[in-house]
Amino acid sequence: MKTGEDKLIQRIAKAAAFKSSRRLAFGIGDDAALLIPRAGFQTILTSDWFLEGSHFLRDKHPPESIGWKCLARAISDVAAMGGAATNFLLSLAIPETHTRLWLDRFLRGLARASRRFDCQLAGGDTARSDQILINVTVVGEIRDDRAVPRSGAKPGDLIYVSGHLGAAEFGLRSFLQSRSAGPRDSLFVKKHLYPEPRLALGQWLAGKRLATSMMDLSDGLSSDLPRLCAASRVGARIITSKLPTVNLRGEKNLKDLDLTELALNGGDDYELLFTVRPNQARRLPAKFQGIPLNCIGEITRQQRLQLLGPGGREETLPAGGWDPFRNRR
Amino acid sequence: MKTGEDKLIQRIAKAAAFKSSRRLAFGIGDDAALLIPRAGFQTILTSDWFLEGSHFLRDKHPPESIGWKCLARAISDVAAMGGAATNFLLSLAIPETHTRLWLDRFLRGLARASRRFDCQLAGGDTARSDQILINVTVVGEIRDDRAVPRSGAKPGDLIYVSGHLGAAEFGLRSFLQSRSAGPRDSLFVKKHLYPEPRLALGQWLAGKRLATSMMDLSDGLSSDLPRLCAASRVGARIITSKLPTVNLRGEKNLKDLDLTELALNGGDDYELLFTVRPNQARRLPAKFQGIPLNCIGEITRQQRLQLLGPGGREETLPAGGWDPFRNRR
Repeated sequence: MKTGEDKLIQRIAKAAAFKSSRRLAFGIGDDAALLIPRAGFQTILTSDWFLEGSHFLRDKHPPESIGWKCLARAISDVAAMGGAATNFLLSLAIPETHTRLWLDRFLRGLARASRRFDCQLAGGDTARSDQILINVTVVGEIRDDRAVPRSGAKPGDLIYVSGHLGAAEFGLRSFLQSRSAGPRDSLFVKKHLYPEPRLALGQWLAGKRLATSMMDLSDGLSSDLPRLCAASRVGARIITSKLPTVNLRGEKNLKDLDLTELALNGGDDYELLFTVRPNQARRLPAKFQGIPLNCIGEITRQQRLQLLGPGGREETLPAGGWDPFRNRR
Repeated sequence: MKTGEDKLIQRIAKAAAFKSSRRLAFGIGDDAALLIPRAGFQTILTSDWFLEGSHFLRDKHPPESIGWKCLARAISDVAAMGGAATNFLLSLAIPETHTRLWLDRFLRGLARASRRFDCQLAGGDTARSDQILINVTVVGEIRDDRAVPRSGAKPGDLIYVSGHLGAAEFGLRSFLQSRSAGPRDSLFVKKHLYPEPRLALGQWLAGKRLATSMMDLSDGLSSDLPRLCAASRVGARIITSKLPTVNLRGEKNLKDLDLTELALNGGDDYELLFTVRPNQARRLPAKFQGIPLNCIGEITRQQRLQLLGPGGREETLPAGGWDPFRNRR
């Protein structure tokens, strides 16, 4: 009684199944998933493309990384609201040639991310396509009125970022120069292949009402900070010397590498960018669960973006990050 | 401060905006949408691909139809649970050449469907692609414990379908023979281009607890009925003469057309397939809001699908509908 698509759905459901605390009334195999919302919580919803050619290379990226990353980057949007991810829908369109070994390895990476972030598969859709097309919808939850929007930054607020900026971009460059991924990959390559959304940090900032605005850094600071500023109708002043650049001791092929440029324009870091009122700043630790938190500047009333360079040199920040309608990676 | 993708998102948000009763805390332009679930209701979630080449033809289908249909068919999955659609996320990947006139017309159709089904845009994602790629996630709601799964059919239950089966498939064939869509299209072509999910019927059946199992007919009865039977671990006996075939009086090019074959295998009808206990059948009207409801057979204990033809001839039903991993439309 089964046809090809049904068998594919069964394989996906089996590979991604794991015991979770999430209350899913019914899911895979029905027309739609049915979720039981938790009283006192709001529902977070986000969808993300992950497309061959634009976001990954079919013949270069390990299928495990594609499976992990398509989920991790969508979950990062939930982290950026301060929430917890609970369920996801996977829409997968692949060529017939990729329904065996490639799919197995893809599902292995996906299942690993699903367990790691306690986010359970609830449904989705499959189709056939010459290109590998992935769309992931993640559902999350957050206690009523605790979600942190992009729009809450006020003049005078201090601007923070987690982690080191440009790490994933440097990892991407190393990866593209390498023959293939392997166990001896650097931490930078691992950050490009297997990013970790900052769920715990986002939840802590939202729970303590410390962040006045927040978003995740997916396209690079120079592209994402303007979005936060636009949503909040404010500007920003960034001190170049305060940017937490990557530490490349021991790495090769570093000639012509501008660490500041990397920190400003490198995409795919999935770190958090957030603002804090000055009188709350002492409540922030220097590190949260080992991840450094750095103040890189402040929010200004004037709606423009200034970069304060060495010796007080001032320039306007041009967007240099990732935009699918401007450049193609 | 804006880049290409941000402008595109603003245009989508503006075109799809309408006043709705839905409680969206915040949506487009933030990292994720934030929804306020209604107390006493469960959340329905579904994602659907709508891909050039597989589901529509870029140079043949009017952009308005593509916009309408990508949302309508995802909403049909919510109707099949008995729920109301409240919000949707649009993931759209298009070529640079399609970001003007095509996008305007696409958004016009999408906005019309959004208003018609009272389902509000809450977010999504954009990307650039050589092919037109669409994925729609719809969020719905249904009163606690009222959702109708595929798995509730019991031996002896009567099998019903709404509407006339094969209408959209006949419309597709007429449309492919025509030069282009226009105001003089037949009702069949309109059903192919602008399907209407059976939201009111699904809600009525779930609200009255009349349906023991339910799904929507997207791939054709011969493909979808086996799915309902598999989920319920039962079989079915269909009486061929009871299938509500289309009435083609006045249509041309009908030679070799088998109306029964069309009713069994035609996809894209988005009618409801549901089962009812025999002692509840008298509560079902012959028509619901003008849509005929027909009993076409019954659920059997034996897990196979029988077709009872004219003169009592019996055959096993082969799946002849739509499966992306078996055939390509």
